Amino acid sequence: MTRQQLFEQIQRKRSYLCIGLDTDLKKIPQHLLQHEDPIFEFNRQIIDATADLCVAYKPNVAFYEAHGPKGWVSLQRTLEAIPQDVFSIADAKRGDIGNTSELYARAFFERMNFDSITVAPYMGADSVTPFLQFKDKWVILLALTSNEGSKDFQFSNVVTQGEAHFLFEKVLIKSQKWGTPENLMYVVGATRCDYIERVREIAPDHFLLVPGVGAQGGSLEEISRYGMNNHCGLLVNSSRQIIYASQGEDFAEKARAAALAVQQEMDKYLNEYLPQ
Amino acid sequence: MTRQQLFEQIQRKRSYLCIGLDTDLKKIPQHLLQHEDPIFEFNRQIIDATADLCVAYKPNVAFYEAHGPKGWVSLQRTLEAIPQDVFSIADAKRGDIGNTSELYARAFFERMNFDSITVAPYMGADSVTPFLQFKDKWVILLALTSNEGSKDFQFSNVVTQGEAHFLFEKVLIKSQKWGTPENLMYVVGATRCDYIERVREIAPDHFLLVPGVGAQGGSLEEISRYGMNNHCGLLVNSSRQIIYASQGEDFAEKARAAALAVQQEMDKYLNEYLPQ
Repeated sequence: MTRQQLFEQIQRKRSYLCIGLDTDLKKIPQHLLQHEDPIFEFNRQIIDATADLCVAYKPNVAFYEAHGPKGWVSLQRTLEAIPQDVFSIADAKRGDIGNTSELYARAFFERMNFDSITVAPYMGADSVTPFLQFKDKWVILLALTSNEGSKDFQFSNVVTQGEAHFLFEKVLIKSQKWGTPENLMYVVGATRCDYIERVREIAPDHFLLVPGVGAQGGSLEEISRYGMNNHCGLLVNSSRQIIYASQGEDFAEKARAAALAVQQEMDKYLNEYLPQ
Repeated sequence: MTRQQLFEQIQRKRSYLCIGLDTDLKKIPQHLLQHEDPIFEFNRQIIDATADLCVAYKPNVAFYEAHGPKGWVSLQRTLEAIPQDVFSIADAKRGDIGNTSELYARAFFERMNFDSITVAPYMGADSVTPFLQFKDKWVILLALTSNEGSKDFQFSNVVTQGEAHFLFEKVLIKSQKWGTPENLMYVVGATRCDYIERVREIAPDHFLLVPGVGAQGGSLEEISRYGMNNHCGLLVNSSRQIIYASQGEDFAEKARAAALAVQQEMDKYLNEYLPQ
């Protein structure tokens, strides 16, 4: 998917919602367990109920990998259930030396046909650039994550040629030499929306994938105010708050209602903050 | 496996060789392709031919994941073919927020029963500590990698309370609060063996997994001289140089010969450098 196609989808649906498919057998409605592939069945119904309200789905790969080979089958089937015009994100946080990253890229972009994958930056350029060689595919690079441990290294004071930055800022600066706003996005945690302005100074044009709204407590209004650019430039993720809105037989209906509430709020912010 | 058991294995075999199972259908002998699971068949024969000469096997997970669900079956079967007393490393470079890292940990330590997994540090404490909660299981944390991109962030000058370090040194310092030499090792690339002394000043007791000897050009003698501690403290990896020593029907025999040459060199360095 191109940046323009993604933006058109956002305008059409009046939404920049990404729904995280962190599908956990312990949390899905128990009546689904009788299905031959309950994880897929849950995802399929969630997707059917919400695909007109969100612009992206983000399966967290760990939840599938935890089930071994059959988990990968569920992941593949889930991907196939996502409509072609909705952006798909493999939240895999891969990253290795060049020839190994290339294998991961082929696995997620060719064998599975995801639009994008999350990538960890620690190993530097050759761990990231192999993912950038695929037409209309995207890297979503970890910059500033929303977890407690983000303080350990991402806020390290790094001095480069006399200039001081946080490490996450150095990741933003350096990686812009590897990719463009057409194939590179950043993960920027919403629990630190005081830093979203700072991110936008360094990376005004890139899309940001923002986790941590809702259950993890970020404010959608502030993210939208400080983060929106002229292509919207935001994908705001919500997982549990939507997919586990109910654990009864009405789970898909309740997920739709939860997604609709977020979409309506986003519609308002698109009116207010999207530069004309 | 405990640190003492690993050390006893090193003393018994007079070896600290780790064999990387980066098994690639394009590089294995073509006669194996007739097998129902050629990747497993290749690994099985390599393991049978070398298990008395090495102390660890390290499947690079990307090579298996690239084949989808059936690749995970090959990985599981490979793990089962590794003798119980040989240390197994899932080279997966995982790392995510706490509850997700816990899922990865269960996948690799419980469902698959690996002894250890490589983990990326960028997301900090809660991305690493879930892997440290399993008895006799190990985290091998990326500190200094051997690829070109290691220069991008790992050598960043980080200032913490007035003290300057490289980022990889900060990773070594900080992570020692999370784990001990009994459950935490570090990846330290051999192409920078001028830094192994520096690593040993900060982490004298931890095991180091050293990639990049052989094909990638590090010197085994220097690594051993600067890196060995009183538990040996080194696992030196070689992949292609051993497993692809021949692409003919004699591949296992030639792999054994290549492993034997390394083991004999290691025997000499254990005599010279292991503190008595």
